[in-house]
Amino acid sequence: MLPKTIEWKENKVFILDQRRLPEEENYLECHDAFTVAEAIKTLAIRGAPAIGIAAAMGIALGALGIDKRDFHSFYGELLSICDTLKQTRPTAINLRWALKRMREVCEANKGMDVGVIKECLIQEAIAILEEDVEINKKIGEMGKDLIRNGDTILTHCNTGALATGGYGTALGVVRRAWEERKGIKVVATETRPLFQGSRLTTWELKQEGIPVSLITDHMAGYLMQKEEIDLVMVGADRIARNGDVANKIGTYTLAVLAREHGIPFYVAAPLSTFDPTIKTGEEIPIEERGEEEITTPWGKRIAPEDVGVRNPAFDITPHRYVMAIVTEKGVIRPPFEEGVRRLWGEANG
Amino acid sequence: MLPKTIEWKENKVFILDQRRLPEEENYLECHDAFTVAEAIKTLAIRGAPAIGIAAAMGIALGALGIDKRDFHSFYGELLSICDTLKQTRPTAINLRWALKRMREVCEANKGMDVGVIKECLIQEAIAILEEDVEINKKIGEMGKDLIRNGDTILTHCNTGALATGGYGTALGVVRRAWEERKGIKVVATETRPLFQGSRLTTWELKQEGIPVSLITDHMAGYLMQKEEIDLVMVGADRIARNGDVANKIGTYTLAVLAREHGIPFYVAAPLSTFDPTIKTGEEIPIEERGEEEITTPWGKRIAPEDVGVRNPAFDITPHRYVMAIVTEKGVIRPPFEEGVRRLWGEANG
Repeated sequence: MLPKTIEWKENKVFILDQRRLPEEENYLECHDAFTVAEAIKTLAIRGAPAIGIAAAMGIALGALGIDKRDFHSFYGELLSICDTLKQTRPTAINLRWALKRMREVCEANKGMDVGVIKECLIQEAIAILEEDVEINKKIGEMGKDLIRNGDTILTHCNTGALATGGYGTALGVVRRAWEERKGIKVVATETRPLFQGSRLTTWELKQEGIPVSLITDHMAGYLMQKEEIDLVMVGADRIARNGDVANKIGTYTLAVLAREHGIPFYVAAPLSTFDPTIKTGEEIPIEERGEEEITTPWGKRIAPEDVGVRNPAFDITPHRYVMAIVTEKGVIRPPFEEGVRRLWGEANG
Repeated sequence: MLPKTIEWKENKVFILDQRRLPEEENYLECHDAFTVAEAIKTLAIRGAPAIGIAAAMGIALGALGIDKRDFHSFYGELLSICDTLKQTRPTAINLRWALKRMREVCEANKGMDVGVIKECLIQEAIAILEEDVEINKKIGEMGKDLIRNGDTILTHCNTGALATGGYGTALGVVRRAWEERKGIKVVATETRPLFQGSRLTTWELKQEGIPVSLITDHMAGYLMQKEEIDLVMVGADRIARNGDVANKIGTYTLAVLAREHGIPFYVAAPLSTFDPTIKTGEEIPIEERGEEEITTPWGKRIAPEDVGVRNPAFDITPHRYVMAIVTEKGVIRPPFEEGVRRLWGEANG
C-alpha cells in the first residue's frame, strides 16, 4: 500500500517528503501557504498534477490565515499568495490551472461571507485531489490497450501515485495494464539529476509487484537497439495546442531514440496539462535549476569547483515524435490540435 | 600541469587512482601484476589506451617476480599472468593488443637469458607508454581541422590524458585545436554510472583553461535541439573492421541524436583500437558491471533493495552513424573497411 502523496487533515496539509524516499517516509506538516510553496520549490513534492494539488491546498491554507472580513481585502491578500505559489515552478501548467480554479471559486462566491468562501476553497482543493485520482484511473482505462501482453515499457522520471493525487498518469496506464493481468515489464530510467526513476518509480512498482529494471538514462539507446523495449510511455508537464510536450529533461532524447527504432512513443496526461493559450512548445518556459543538483549529488561533490553547468529541468518533444496522447477523455492521435479541441469541447461543456 | 596517469619507476608501477579524482590525487604503488590487474578491474585506471599500458606494465612487473631460469618455465608463468590481466575487462581491445606485444617480445628473445628478457619486457612496456603519447599527438594533429573556430564540441566519458599515456584521443583532438588558438568550447556529459565526465574530463579541461560545461547524459538532445552543439567527438574501446564502434555506454544514444540533428559524429582512436579479427560490432563482447554502480553511487543507496538493474558498460555504434574516425595515420571516412585496411597496411609494413 503506497503512502498518500498529499493530504488535507484538520486544516493542515501533509506532504510526503519525496526527497527522502525511498529511505524514509516522512511527512511535512504545513500550516501555511509559504511552507507549501517551499515544499514545491524544493521538490519535496513534484510531478505536474501533484504540484497542482499542492498549490490548491496552499491557497486553502493561505485563505485560512487571512484575517480580513471584507471580500476585497481578503481577495487582495489571496491573490498575492497565488503569486507566491505561481513563482515556485514555471513549467508545469497544472499549477497555474489549479490556482485559476481556486481564484474562480473566490470570484463565484464574492457575495458570500469570507468564512464561507474559506470553506469553499478547502472543499475545492480537496475536490481537485479527488478528481485527480479519478482522472488518472480514466487515463489508465483509456490507455491500457496501448500495452499488449508481454510488452516491456520504458518510462522516464516518476509519473505514478507520487506524481499525482494517486494512481499516476503514464504509470497509471502501466498499473491498469497490470491490473488486467497483462504480463508486462517496466524499464525505469534513473532520471538524473534527481533520480526520481531510481528512488520513486522503482519503489512504487515494487510495491505493486510489477517487474522493473533500473537503467541510467543513456542506456535507453542500447536497450532499444537490442530490441528489449516495446514502447515508451511518459507523462507531461505542459502540452501545447499542437501537441508539443514539455516533460522532464531527457524525454526528448528518448523520443528521438524511439523513432529511430520504430518504437511507439506515448504521452499520458490529464486534459488540465494542455495549455490552450500556447500554440507550440517553443513558447513553454523551461526552468533552469541550480548547478549543485549536478555537481553535488547527495552532498558529495563530484565535479571541480567553478565548473560551468547546464541544468534545464525540462525539454520539449515536438509533436511529430508523439504517436498518441492518452487523456481521461480518450486517446488523441495526430493531428493533435484537432483532437485536443474536440476533447476540450467535450470536457468543458 | 596534469599528473601522470601511469608511470614505471624503480621497478614499480605507479597508477593515479582515478576513482578518487578530482578530490584526491593518490597514486597506487604496484609491486606485482595482480595489484595492477585489480587496479584495472576496479577502474582505478580506465580508458582503452591507458589499460593497455597498465597491462603491459603489469606483465613487466609479473616477469620480474618469476624466479624461473629456463625460458619454457618462465614463459609458462608469464602466460598465466597474461591470462589474469586479460580477464580484467573484456571490451577494450588495447588491453589484448598490449598483451600480445609483450608475448611477442618474449618469443622474439627466447634464445636469450631470462634476465635479459625481463629487461626487454620493461623497455617494451615503457615504449608502449611513450608511443601512446606520440600517437595521441598525431591523432590530435590529424583531427584538428575537423574542429572550426567557434565550435562547441560535445564529448562523452573521458578520453583525455587520464584515459591514455597522455594527451588523449578525442580530447587530444580538442586539445590540439585549442593549442591552435581556436575559440572552442566543450560540453562534457557526466557519464553515469561512474561520472568520468564530471570528475575527470571537466578537471582535465579546466587545467588547460578550455571552457567546459557539464551536463547530465540525457541533456544532449536538448542542447542539440537548441543548436548549441556543432560536433560530437568521442573515443573508442574497440572498432570492428566495418567501422562499428564499441565505446562507453551512452555513445550510441549520442550518435543517434547527432544524426537526427545533422551534427557530425567523430571517433578518435589509435589504430591499435581496431580489431582486425572481427567483422562487425555484434561480435564485440559487452561488459556488464555490478548493480551497485547504479543503485549506490558514492556508497549512498538511492534505489530500493533487490531492484533489477542493467549495467552494460559499453554500447556499439553502427558505422553508419560515424562520419569519420581519426587515427594517428589519418582520418578514415566511409567505407571504413577499405580505409582501415589501407592504414593498417601503411602502419604494419
